[in-house]
Amino acid sequence: MKPAEGRKRVVLECIQPQLDCGHTPARRFLGDRIAVSAAIYSDGHDHVLARLLYKHRSDPGWLSTPMTALGNDLWSAEFTVDKIGPWSFTIQAWVDHFDTWCADLKKRLAAQPDPASPDPEKRDLPPQDIPLALTIGATLVDQIAARALGDDTPQLKSIAASLRALAGKKSALYQYPLTASQEELAARYPDLGFASTTEKELPLWVDRERARFSSWYELFPRSTAPAAKEDQPAATEDQPDPARHGTFADVELLLPEIAAMGFDILYLPPIHPIGRAFRKGSNNSTTPGPDDEGSPWAIGSPEGGHKSIHPKLGSFADFDHLVAAVHANGMELALDIAFQCSPDHPWVTQHPDWFLHRPDGSIQYAENPPKKYQDIYPLNFETSDWQGLWDELRSVFQFWIDRGVRVFRVDNPHTKPLAFWEWCISELHRDTPGVIFLSEAFTRPHLMYGLAKRGFTQSYTYFTWRNEKPELQAYFEEITQPPISDFFTPNLWPNTPDILHATLQTGGRAAFQQRLILATTLASSYGIYGPSFELGEHIPIRPGSEEYLHSEKYQIRRWDRRDPNSLAPLITLLNQIRRTNPALQSDLSLHFHPVDNHQIIAYSKSAPATDESPANVILVVVNLDPRYEQSGWVDLDLKKLGIRHNENFEVEDLLTGNHYLWHDRSNYVAIHPSATAHIFRIKGTRSE
Amino acid sequence: MKPAEGRKRVVLECIQPQLDCGHTPARRFLGDRIAVSAAIYSDGHDHVLARLLYKHRSDPGWLSTPMTALGNDLWSAEFTVDKIGPWSFTIQAWVDHFDTWCADLKKRLAAQPDPASPDPEKRDLPPQDIPLALTIGATLVDQIAARALGDDTPQLKSIAASLRALAGKKSALYQYPLTASQEELAARYPDLGFASTTEKELPLWVDRERARFSSWYELFPRSTAPAAKEDQPAATEDQPDPARHGTFADVELLLPEIAAMGFDILYLPPIHPIGRAFRKGSNNSTTPGPDDEGSPWAIGSPEGGHKSIHPKLGSFADFDHLVAAVHANGMELALDIAFQCSPDHPWVTQHPDWFLHRPDGSIQYAENPPKKYQDIYPLNFETSDWQGLWDELRSVFQFWIDRGVRVFRVDNPHTKPLAFWEWCISELHRDTPGVIFLSEAFTRPHLMYGLAKRGFTQSYTYFTWRNEKPELQAYFEEITQPPISDFFTPNLWPNTPDILHATLQTGGRAAFQQRLILATTLASSYGIYGPSFELGEHIPIRPGSEEYLHSEKYQIRRWDRRDPNSLAPLITLLNQIRRTNPALQSDLSLHFHPVDNHQIIAYSKSAPATDESPANVILVVVNLDPRYEQSGWVDLDLKKLGIRHNENFEVEDLLTGNHYLWHDRSNYVAIHPSATAHIFRIKGTRSE
Repeated sequence: MKPAEGRKRVVLECIQPQLDCGHTPARRFLGDRIAVSAAIYSDGHDHVLARLLYKHRSDPGWLSTPMTALGNDLWSAEFTVDKIGPWSFTIQAWVDHFDTWCADLKKRLAAQPDPASPDPEKRDLPPQDIPLALTIGATLVDQIAARALGDDTPQLKSIAASLRALAGKKSALYQYPLTASQEELAARYPDLGFASTTEKELPLWVDRERARFSSWYELFPRSTAPAAKEDQPAATEDQPDPARHGTFADVELLLPEIAAMGFDILYLPPIHPIGRAFRKGSNNSTTPGPDDEGSPWAIGSPEGGHKSIHPKLGSFADFDHLVAAVHANGMELALDIAFQCSPDHPWVTQHPDWFLHRPDGSIQYAENPPKKYQDIYPLNFETSDWQGLWDELRSVFQFWIDRGVRVFRVDNPHTKPLAFWEWCISELHRDTPGVIFLSEAFTRPHLMYGLAKRGFTQSYTYFTWRNEKPELQAYFEEITQPPISDFFTPNLWPNTPDILHATLQTGGRAAFQQRLILATTLASSYGIYGPSFELGEHIPIRPGSEEYLHSEKYQIRRWDRRDPNSLAPLITLLNQIRRTNPALQSDLSLHFHPVDNHQIIAYSKSAPATDESPANVILVVVNLDPRYEQSGWVDLDLKKLGIRHNENFEVEDLLTGNHYLWHDRSNYVAIHPSATAHIFRIKGTRSE
Repeated sequence: MKPAEGRKRVVLECIQPQLDCGHTPARRFLGDRIAVSAAIYSDGHDHVLARLLYKHRSDPGWLSTPMTALGNDLWSAEFTVDKIGPWSFTIQAWVDHFDTWCADLKKRLAAQPDPASPDPEKRDLPPQDIPLALTIGATLVDQIAARALGDDTPQLKSIAASLRALAGKKSALYQYPLTASQEELAARYPDLGFASTTEKELPLWVDRERARFSSWYELFPRSTAPAAKEDQPAATEDQPDPARHGTFADVELLLPEIAAMGFDILYLPPIHPIGRAFRKGSNNSTTPGPDDEGSPWAIGSPEGGHKSIHPKLGSFADFDHLVAAVHANGMELALDIAFQCSPDHPWVTQHPDWFLHRPDGSIQYAENPPKKYQDIYPLNFETSDWQGLWDELRSVFQFWIDRGVRVFRVDNPHTKPLAFWEWCISELHRDTPGVIFLSEAFTRPHLMYGLAKRGFTQSYTYFTWRNEKPELQAYFEEITQPPISDFFTPNLWPNTPDILHATLQTGGRAAFQQRLILATTLASSYGIYGPSFELGEHIPIRPGSEEYLHSEKYQIRRWDRRDPNSLAPLITLLNQIRRTNPALQSDLSLHFHPVDNHQIIAYSKSAPATDESPANVILVVVNLDPRYEQSGWVDLDLKKLGIRHNENFEVEDLLTGNHYLWHDRSNYVAIHPSATAHIFRIKGTRSE
């Protein structure tokens, strides 16, 4: 079947950014320059022109910018995204007969026989029909005039007339008749009758700055009661240093300290009532005592479910007060949304059809045979009332959004259908595009990436299990470059309540420093689970396990935040370095530099100069060995650092304040585990 | 907006082969095994199963084959294409609760407490609720029985009953209750209620064998008059050895000789009446004499246009006779379709609106300012009668298809809209899927590839201008690997009537041998323009030009095919080697092996063993220097050759019949320009 219009001669291909044939929006951040590229070509020798059209959902019409030919049929254009939320773009390209005519006329004029030339070859060139070409040009400009607006029409008509007049004069040697501004004027009104456009508009999603650059601090509010209070319970074998149940008010008292460390997101595990049925005791025991508080992830009791607050933490008024206090301290509160139920959750009786029933009448608890998790009922997304279930889950987010929460850490999203997340997040983002969703999916790569494509703003990563140089380098090259970086934003955690990695169990303080420095400099978003992390908590429940002994998941802990060995000062310094160095606030410039020692890893990040600040280039060199000093030669990719070949340049170690003079690409480092790393700011580069 | 069905939990991604989001069919050849792969996954831990559905357009329904999990959520399946023309495929994937149940039950059984075990840990394992699991399984099998057909239903019902009976018996230690054939029976009737399928069916296009493996011989029929005839005209300065105008009958006399050389496609430049207006004389002169025959590409005269035959070549009866004779000699005839007109073409008066008119009333001839081609009127595809023009052009192909032609070489397709080709070729292929279209596009890569994507079966390439090892290797790695090889099939020409490359002008016989051996072994399709090529014609019209002196494009030539220096014996041998070695009949296995001499290039191709023949592995080593002997060490990628590390193996040079014993990966070669190359068949490989 013939196309509707066979005269659209221009082909548009390879349009970037584009994910999954335009089904998945490419992700960018507020203020980014968006570079759009495409292969654009037509048959024959006629000139092609193209322009990029783009708009935010709230814009009444398309904005437009001309595209530039890069050669070999590749074209590009850029625009800045100045609003968060959904954007779209398309390309319009056409054969431009006026542009072709201008270029051809110049070639004809250059090839005119010149009777005055001393060169006989120039005198004897064949004639070039210039008057005819000028007449053709006049017709083209008349057609342009007919499309023009306002004063441009008479101006263009007079250009056409003067071309026609020139065609009527016999001249031995014609000159090019148009000025640059006349060419520009005519180019303003291209003939788009046969213009080609992309088959569909391509989507972009723009997140706010915090989605790109964030520092998370996780704590269990029930473990925040001050250590020195007289109302603490008596010690037992399992809880040698017991504390009363902390409250939102206790959390508030810690906010200045957490803010002073430089964090901007305070993340709380689930704050809902905890079920009684099959409650777990301390150290995940299935035989809890009457005073055991249970796991915050066993959500729901007669006191309520996902829209209720554990009475021991406080009231809704206390919660609202906490949200305000977090803001007042320059931070945001992140809640943990875990879509699963304790057997006591109100949904179990209100919506029994949202759970799987077994032939014996019981409800299917969570299982990974032969393991049983009887304190948790998973939701059955194959229920015939899936629509009702989806609506209720979405309303859980909306409930907390309505109380001022804009950041959610989502527990195990990979055990809920991807179609649900796609719908749920886009529904929530429609009214509140600034909401950040952190995906806590530790699973296979396709599934993790699939969640990111369906709207999760940030994601947990494999960072925790990437400890050697080659695996760190391969993984971070994968996730910080397109296509992955077009939709996936990593958030690095050296520890979580679920993961005490072996390196921390055995590596001592140097291991904690190393993982912290890697997390804060490899990615612009990271988090720690504290105060466990800064206090160096490192004993597993049993050898070979990644579970903490006396895990806060199952019991209240009391922490001595005044411990002189706390890593808080280093954390504070690193967060300060991150805030003052734009290079560390994005991941896309990450570049690894070879080092001739497999225990030393080196990488750089850079941010271009802006009106407000010079270019910022950071080079990080980390000793991955927590036990011994390691030394070696770093082989710098000078181009990436903005340094000329054979140049001297100064590097300042932002961890120590020490300055070094370096030269050319090969430079020596020696790093003791107690120092762990250099975080160099490169001074005196060309761009500064 | 919620999806229509939220319970479709499986995601399908990264489906290959797929080009341009399924808009462009991937190309394959008759008899190929099509490997389809995809990333397939669901949320949670339930098992996923998938099957590939595929069909030829003529098939009444889908054929189906189960997909295999490769790990990490990647799946694959294969099928054989046994018909030419359009195929489509899709994938169906679903969460399989029965498969999950089987696997879970096995885990539960393995974790049962065993009261008879000597190991106290095994005796004290927690109970596993096996009877409940068996009851759940019985329910699943009942549901399967309800979907089953014929005798399978009662069989499945009895399996369910026996599971239920087993559940009722109290046992200390349960055994797995199903046989493999019972599992298989149940797997035959999956629950596809919530199965996911690809968003659209993905297209494949299957060409016949000749599209993949072909050897073309181009000649000018007007230069085929026998040399010894008495009816030859008298010699002139421009035509020292003039010949009368050759005819189809003269061509027929040459067919046995051309077939004996091993060619399977005889390609003729345009056979239509030639225009008189602005006719070019010999050596592209603009001042032809009255006897100048003109260029066959200046198509059309009062005697007719694209559906007519030049009267001096013969009648339609002669043409039909030639087609039959070509077939009788085991070859096919290829015609040259050049959509352009001499000013005398009937279309110029019948359809003046198909041409661009200038303000002075004249018709726009072909121009590339300042160059003029006044003997050629290009068609104006922006005519308002584009539909009429398209129909007429399509009917030109159809006219010759109706006379038995199945192969077309299309002149300058890149100067006609891509949308036209897409429509035209698909229309012609609808009724005659076996038609081969060779694209004569020497232009920028995107445009050349764009033509291939729109239906051209084969394409001319940059081979002619790739002479050094690095550029040959880079170019052939690009065009023989996906994604390019999924739609682009190269056809290599060491020379054409338009291109006498500098290497042939100056390199002597060794250069001709080298380019011929590269063309015949790098690609499975190639062609030569003869007898110019085999007779070593190498004088350009002027230094620095790629045009032949006394080019056949503008005059009749007489050739001495009996010349003892003819390369015909080498051509014959190479075509024989190509026919007897399946490795050389496809391009997808091409692999380059390093050599420590930049003047020696080495590459291999292989074909797997089949029921009829053993594996076939060819290693080609070419001296790229036409002047001096070159030697060096070839560093073989043994895996690609099917040779074990440290193994001795025999290689047979198919050019000379010499045998060599080689050992392991590093082997020495020394090649004199007169020998030019080794074409080794590797003997005694594992696969043989």
